[in-house]
Amino acid sequence: MLVLITYDVNTETAAGRKRLRKIARECVNYGQRVQNSVFECVMDAALCCSVKHKLEQIIDPEKDSLRFYYLGNHYKTKVEHMGAKPSFDVTEPLIL
Amino acid sequence: MLVLITYDVNTETAAGRKRLRKIARECVNYGQRVQNSVFECVMDAALCCSVKHKLEQIIDPEKDSLRFYYLGNHYKTKVEHMGAKPSFDVTEPLIL
Repeated sequence: MLVLITYDVNTETAAGRKRLRKIARECVNYGQRVQNSVFECVMDAALCCSVKHKLEQIIDPEKDSLRFYYLGNHYKTKVEHMGAKPSFDVTEPLIL
Repeated sequence: MLVLITYDVNTETAAGRKRLRKIARECVNYGQRVQNSVFECVMDAALCCSVKHKLEQIIDPEKDSLRFYYLGNHYKTKVEHMGAKPSFDVTEPLIL
């Protein structure tokens, strides 16, 4: 299934930027970064559960938020893009 | 149906921040800002089409991107939240 993961952090602080990089490094193992804080990950329920657990360890629950949207297996007609092409953030290399 | 609208812009520039505010002002007419660049809007297909057209006029298609995710009418079980509670960005008043 497609799981959309959106992440909110104040990247004005170094610690915030570090958490964002950690989240991104985790998420790109399972999918694609389509916007700065939006990841589309294809995974089954068991993997999703494991990923959520990992991400929970990274975020600062007082400051950051994560949202998960479950788009099922037939997601191609449920997504539409407008404007600049999706791309990885070249300012933050995600090569592991 | 629930339409998730995610927006990507470089808010390091005043013009980018202005476009983000415009997008937000438009989207909050139809739903809730759940993260800085993530909006959940409840609308029918006709309204969605109209909103997309309006947003298309606001973005800079060379620099910004918008993505629309269609979560249908039975969306409550398709959304999960972790961490800090969803809130409007208090630094950018959205009162119209």
